[in-house]
Amino acid sequence: MDKKDFSQHISKQFNEDLEQIITRVMTMGGLVEQQLDGALEALVTGNQEKGQQVVTSDYRVNAMEVELDEACTHVLARRQPTASDLRLIMSVIKTITDLERIGDEAERVGRMALHLLEEDRQRSPMAEISALGEQIKRMLRGALDAFTRMDAEQAVHVAQEDIKADSQYDSIIRNLVKNLEDHPKSVPPVLDVLWATRSLERIGDRARNICEYVIYFVRGKDVRHISFEQMAEEATGDRR
Amino acid sequence: MDKKDFSQHISKQFNEDLEQIITRVMTMGGLVEQQLDGALEALVTGNQEKGQQVVTSDYRVNAMEVELDEACTHVLARRQPTASDLRLIMSVIKTITDLERIGDEAERVGRMALHLLEEDRQRSPMAEISALGEQIKRMLRGALDAFTRMDAEQAVHVAQEDIKADSQYDSIIRNLVKNLEDHPKSVPPVLDVLWATRSLERIGDRARNICEYVIYFVRGKDVRHISFEQMAEEATGDRR
Repeated sequence: MDKKDFSQHISKQFNEDLEQIITRVMTMGGLVEQQLDGALEALVTGNQEKGQQVVTSDYRVNAMEVELDEACTHVLARRQPTASDLRLIMSVIKTITDLERIGDEAERVGRMALHLLEEDRQRSPMAEISALGEQIKRMLRGALDAFTRMDAEQAVHVAQEDIKADSQYDSIIRNLVKNLEDHPKSVPPVLDVLWATRSLERIGDRARNICEYVIYFVRGKDVRHISFEQMAEEATGDRR
Repeated sequence: MDKKDFSQHISKQFNEDLEQIITRVMTMGGLVEQQLDGALEALVTGNQEKGQQVVTSDYRVNAMEVELDEACTHVLARRQPTASDLRLIMSVIKTITDLERIGDEAERVGRMALHLLEEDRQRSPMAEISALGEQIKRMLRGALDAFTRMDAEQAVHVAQEDIKADSQYDSIIRNLVKNLEDHPKSVPPVLDVLWATRSLERIGDRARNICEYVIYFVRGKDVRHISFEQMAEEATGDRR
């Protein structure tokens, strides 16, 4: 976020509160990225240690969500922000909910990875899944970047990337359906891969949610539940 | 919610704002219940009209979420609530996010129901799925009841019901895995039933989230990410 935005506040303490909250959201975002990274490596390469680490570290993401919610409630109670400061806090409250759920999905991917044997991995479309995972990682990184700099145009760009993720996802699912048809004896591991893929796709949806909160903060317009075209208009249209 | 709680506010207008918000959350909850009901009927009985209705009505749930978020932002800006009033608004903001996502899951169930043929339905463990659906409906009803009356003990009770839902879910999944093993020629419809079952289970998780916000409001304690035993202690322990 542009530091200049903070300089207009009457209270120096309020500035510091807001900056501290944004910094903590970034820390939480960084941890969630690490979790996704580890989960994906565990899934694609079979690194069991990484998978275990992701599963046992989820509590840290949860703790950050609770602490950040508390911090936001404190700022609301003590500073009673209005206008764009209030929108910022609202965006933070929504963002941390999505970050926590991304952490849950990453944990799920890690857990599924731990179930898989090398032969399950070899039978799975791991190259495609890895490509989807990289796309999702880019989206999460982009959403967090857009959030840090409160950049509505980047937010629109990242949100639109979800179209590509959805099409990658559809292709993997078709592949896994064929796998289920051809190997009825190994349904459970294929389903594990299916759940993990679904979790990756959901993380993309949540990165897109974060982008929508950025646009809400910057433009004061709620762009949930509208088309990408409308979203792009709202994010760039009323430039002054 | 007990009307007495509102009588202590200095501003009559503030009382009215809060009451109006709670009433609108109830309206949104009622619509989401209707959506779940229709989706379940479409899934279990094959009522296509209901399924179609659920899919085309989701936008109404989405619109309510946006409107209620706006109403909460207005109250925060104009009334600058503190203490329990602020916790109430925070609980509402979190609750409507979950209600909207429950609406999304119900829509997904409705869409999956539209894919299924009568023979797919007959091969599926529909009696079990129907029982899970009824359990989830009871949980959602209970969570909304607990929210309306801000009853922390009922909230704990409803949250604990998720254990039963999870075990019903596990049993259905085992059944569907067997179905996939025995009928490799009908993988897509079995997967549709699988996704729908997963959505029902997720709705249970979200009803549980709403219960946690009720406990947060009533007791001022954040009970997310802790065991059911700790939750029950927090909800009933510090009675005065």
